[in-house]
Amino acid sequence: MKKVVLIRHGESQWNLENRFTGWTDVDLTENGVQEAIKAGKLLKKEGFKFEKAYTSFLKRANKTLNTILDQMDLDWIPVEKSWRLNEKHYGMLQGLNKAETAEKYGDEQVLIWRRSYDVPPAPLDLSDSRSASQDPRYAGVPKAFVPQTEALKDTVERILPYWLEVIYPSLVNHDEIIVAAHGNSLRGIIKYLKGISDENIVSLNLPTAVPYVFEFDDDLNFVKDYFLGDPEEIKKLMDAVANQGKKK
Amino acid sequence: MKKVVLIRHGESQWNLENRFTGWTDVDLTENGVQEAIKAGKLLKKEGFKFEKAYTSFLKRANKTLNTILDQMDLDWIPVEKSWRLNEKHYGMLQGLNKAETAEKYGDEQVLIWRRSYDVPPAPLDLSDSRSASQDPRYAGVPKAFVPQTEALKDTVERILPYWLEVIYPSLVNHDEIIVAAHGNSLRGIIKYLKGISDENIVSLNLPTAVPYVFEFDDDLNFVKDYFLGDPEEIKKLMDAVANQGKKK
Repeated sequence: MKKVVLIRHGESQWNLENRFTGWTDVDLTENGVQEAIKAGKLLKKEGFKFEKAYTSFLKRANKTLNTILDQMDLDWIPVEKSWRLNEKHYGMLQGLNKAETAEKYGDEQVLIWRRSYDVPPAPLDLSDSRSASQDPRYAGVPKAFVPQTEALKDTVERILPYWLEVIYPSLVNHDEIIVAAHGNSLRGIIKYLKGISDENIVSLNLPTAVPYVFEFDDDLNFVKDYFLGDPEEIKKLMDAVANQGKKK
Repeated sequence: MKKVVLIRHGESQWNLENRFTGWTDVDLTENGVQEAIKAGKLLKKEGFKFEKAYTSFLKRANKTLNTILDQMDLDWIPVEKSWRLNEKHYGMLQGLNKAETAEKYGDEQVLIWRRSYDVPPAPLDLSDSRSASQDPRYAGVPKAFVPQTEALKDTVERILPYWLEVIYPSLVNHDEIIVAAHGNSLRGIIKYLKGISDENIVSLNLPTAVPYVFEFDDDLNFVKDYFLGDPEEIKKLMDAVANQGKKK
């Protein structure tokens, strides 16, 4: 049985402040680091031995991964980083908190952005200091691929080539893989593997820093998926994420 | 001007306990983490923008690198890890402290091992639980390459192919590179670049977690080298390392 573990980064500073983060490179909070330590200890106790790791270009996912690997004494395994695993780009919303957003764009518009699969927020201007086009880390990415905003649909579509061409095929040579990324980029992988509809994927709320295991048979057919850890506690974490989205 | 920064990992638990570490995967102390944080802040202040990083298969070098990159907000750059950057393998001495070593092998023998360029300690038995041949992280390395002991000469000879074939050529495409590794693997690179003799290299004592900059011109000829930081403080750190080697 081959295994891919998906894990959403721990709490970040802007999760805490309830601001739209997207591609902004916000750090983990101390609580977020502790969540990652806990996930690492659990994965070690459950006997996981990852041979390869994937993560995004964003600090909060990198630190979550490094912290987990350190807890597992797997600091040495190869790590591949890709912009394709980044969080959904939130366009003009990046940096705003929920109250500022409602004030600026109106409650109704915010509801559409939050609930819809294919309506993106207003795009960043290319000259905006928040634009990824200004950031040297994306200098190696074709300009046409660098988003100024994204609907969830766009995020799903840009993660898939990386899953299909890089992560999934690496199961041929590796038995256990970990992917440390973000709520929406992981939604893309999960949507594809589980055949979740456009309507239903928007209400899938991944808990932070809880290992989500996907098992594959030797022919690499997807077999089953489950969270690691106490079901009660995971339920609470998922509710917390869902409710955070509802606060103004 | 292109730059390679060499950095020796911060203080490890066994540095503190004055035990031979070698390929044993010992963690950093809290002081070691603080040393790495300080190095990262200094490199950021001096305007370094690494595009690529190299490190060993050992936790203390990985954590030093990750901590530095995090301080510099360069978590996202590609990191390549290789067993060839590992510390010198100390054979049967791994795990012993200086007093135990003197008792077991005699003062004179220990002096020879410490001072000589080409006399290795007694090798580990292949069945020894300390042998790297038992460790899955070296499963991808040809058996004939996995040492059971090393003289400094052996360490220098195994680091050179990696310097010549991987690190140095990557300067063609990158302006600034960081290599986080160990006292003896870094000695190998420095010996080669500066043409230091076999006799003199054994008394080069690199301070821990002090960035050591090597500059190259556009044709990649080595031009000059210097430490970053306060010269007085660096001198003290080098003396501390030299004296640690002398303690029984």
